[in-house]
Amino acid sequence: MLMRNLLHRALHDGTILLRNHQRCSTAWRATHHCSALVYREHSHDINTVRMEQLLLPPVGDLSVRVHMLAAPVNPADMNMIQGSYPILCPLPAVGGSEGVGEVIEVGKDVTSLRPGDWVVPIYAGFGTWRTGAVCKVDELISVPKDISILGAATIFVNPCTAYRMLHDFQTLTPGCTVIQNASNSAVGQAVIQIAAALGLKTINIIRDRPNCAELIDELRSLGADYVLTEEEVMSTGLHWVFEEVPKPKLGLNCVGGLSGGLVLSNLDYGGTMVTYGGMAKRPLQIPAKSFIFHNVTLKGFWLTHWKRKHREDKAQLKSMLDAVCELMKGGQLSAPHCVQTPFHQYTQALQATMQSHCRKHVLIM
Amino acid sequence: MLMRNLLHRALHDGTILLRNHQRCSTAWRATHHCSALVYREHSHDINTVRMEQLLLPPVGDLSVRVHMLAAPVNPADMNMIQGSYPILCPLPAVGGSEGVGEVIEVGKDVTSLRPGDWVVPIYAGFGTWRTGAVCKVDELISVPKDISILGAATIFVNPCTAYRMLHDFQTLTPGCTVIQNASNSAVGQAVIQIAAALGLKTINIIRDRPNCAELIDELRSLGADYVLTEEEVMSTGLHWVFEEVPKPKLGLNCVGGLSGGLVLSNLDYGGTMVTYGGMAKRPLQIPAKSFIFHNVTLKGFWLTHWKRKHREDKAQLKSMLDAVCELMKGGQLSAPHCVQTPFHQYTQALQATMQSHCRKHVLIM
Repeated sequence: MLMRNLLHRALHDGTILLRNHQRCSTAWRATHHCSALVYREHSHDINTVRMEQLLLPPVGDLSVRVHMLAAPVNPADMNMIQGSYPILCPLPAVGGSEGVGEVIEVGKDVTSLRPGDWVVPIYAGFGTWRTGAVCKVDELISVPKDISILGAATIFVNPCTAYRMLHDFQTLTPGCTVIQNASNSAVGQAVIQIAAALGLKTINIIRDRPNCAELIDELRSLGADYVLTEEEVMSTGLHWVFEEVPKPKLGLNCVGGLSGGLVLSNLDYGGTMVTYGGMAKRPLQIPAKSFIFHNVTLKGFWLTHWKRKHREDKAQLKSMLDAVCELMKGGQLSAPHCVQTPFHQYTQALQATMQSHCRKHVLIM
Repeated sequence: MLMRNLLHRALHDGTILLRNHQRCSTAWRATHHCSALVYREHSHDINTVRMEQLLLPPVGDLSVRVHMLAAPVNPADMNMIQGSYPILCPLPAVGGSEGVGEVIEVGKDVTSLRPGDWVVPIYAGFGTWRTGAVCKVDELISVPKDISILGAATIFVNPCTAYRMLHDFQTLTPGCTVIQNASNSAVGQAVIQIAAALGLKTINIIRDRPNCAELIDELRSLGADYVLTEEEVMSTGLHWVFEEVPKPKLGLNCVGGLSGGLVLSNLDYGGTMVTYGGMAKRPLQIPAKSFIFHNVTLKGFWLTHWKRKHREDKAQLKSMLDAVCELMKGGQLSAPHCVQTPFHQYTQALQATMQSHCRKHVLIM
């Protein structure tokens, strides 16, 4: 078999796309190739993403071969495919940034991982929507195997974002209050649970919707102290809440516009609002007095930036993952409610993720 | 003479308002009373402010008697009279928060000040629009006498605001760039001069106006590196500037609205914008991506808050004042262009300050 005949186009990580219908032995295929969701151009048309067969490179001395177990479809993945995300992969590229895999084979100089370990990729743009991958060992970090596959597949982006935002912007002690919008998002739910585990009180703003009472019960069952619609906050204010709990030192904003204003205007003097999303696609409107007389600080958070900044500090990454895994093991942090989609039904998961406010879809390999 | 007959109504600092036309000996009047601009209610009508005769309390063991030399009329003073400032004095009150006085008499336990020293009040709401005052020694801080009276009278609010904003929010080394709007304000001019003394480059945004070329020359003569109108920044952008100097790590915003947006959108990645005023009376509009992908921080600055926070730390206050006075002595920081108004013509100064964009008026006692 002439390898040259198999070449279609090399991916940036050394993986090689196979021509469709290329025939080779089953055993060879099992170790040397994988199925992957590949896009060759940036487009809003999800048909751009197709399942293709990739030839994996040999495992180098400091590389590992991984069998992917599960990988979520996040909105940021769709933005990368569309070309509208600030980080884009060289084309053609495999979609997906997050997921969990099992180590199958390690290079001779690899000491930190062993076959059987579960690993998650550290950096965005890994291309997790595939059955197998060969990569450098320092692109991965291990996670314990006593959490669920779904928990492991979705641990790095949303729960870690929530974890960092609750730890890095204000000194919060048990009894302190945090206010957030988008409380039903995957990050919002993680905020509720991690905050509860830390002994913090949460004020959770949600959009009004038909199944509001049901959602309120659901978020309360996760540990939310107060769950209010934007309309309730606007009409009655939060004075009654602040008779029971202190004003929040920390606000988390994933929406912007009016909803971001509700978070900001209810912060305590000297509080910090962290923006990590702009779901409403409307700018925040901030009056000067918020800064001058109310002494608020506005900052942003993007886990990708945080990881870049701590690139050389694997211990920080590890300690964050360990802390989040401990919460999962202890039942204080649950995996988000996901729709599990068999890998070959990926179109369904991509289509659903294009709609706003859908449940998170996780591809099961 | 029965003191009781003189009482009209006690001011909160122990000063007593004298009935009009109360007669007493000239010598007694010189040491025991003063003329002051008093307001008895909050109003937008400047006729609320009237010159009255006040009876000064005796000098206590830890008090000093001061003869005021000069006191500016700042927009914040007018807001206090109108009742729209976040700090209000109990009524009736004497107007003015800033100014310089000469120590005339000190209490027996006062060691930090001597007769003849120049002093400025530390906290807002002192009531500097008067010829004399008796107050606790820790309400005052001394300034050297080898700067001009106008410089001393206007040193504490605007130059110290500029000084703190250039020192407290980003680590700036010579060659770094600062961008600001309201560049022709008293703070703006101080920013230009202090930044130049620190070896920083300044990009200064001004409103378009008839005498634009003249103003540009004036600000350049203070040390401004770039002076541009809002329209210029909007139409041609600052790309050509950033070929000559690095993008600014620090932005200073006293305007808000569109102009604040120009400061924000030209910041370097990870930069900080400090808001210290809202002259346009329009909110800042901040897109989520500024926070998330551009990693900007937005903070506010209010010198009154800074002074409160450092209430117990006179050394910090003193070192800031010393640094600013040194710049004045060295000719690197000039007193703002002021209109000097004789004390009894105060109505003129108050009226002018109610108009926006007027020159600063300083009452000369």
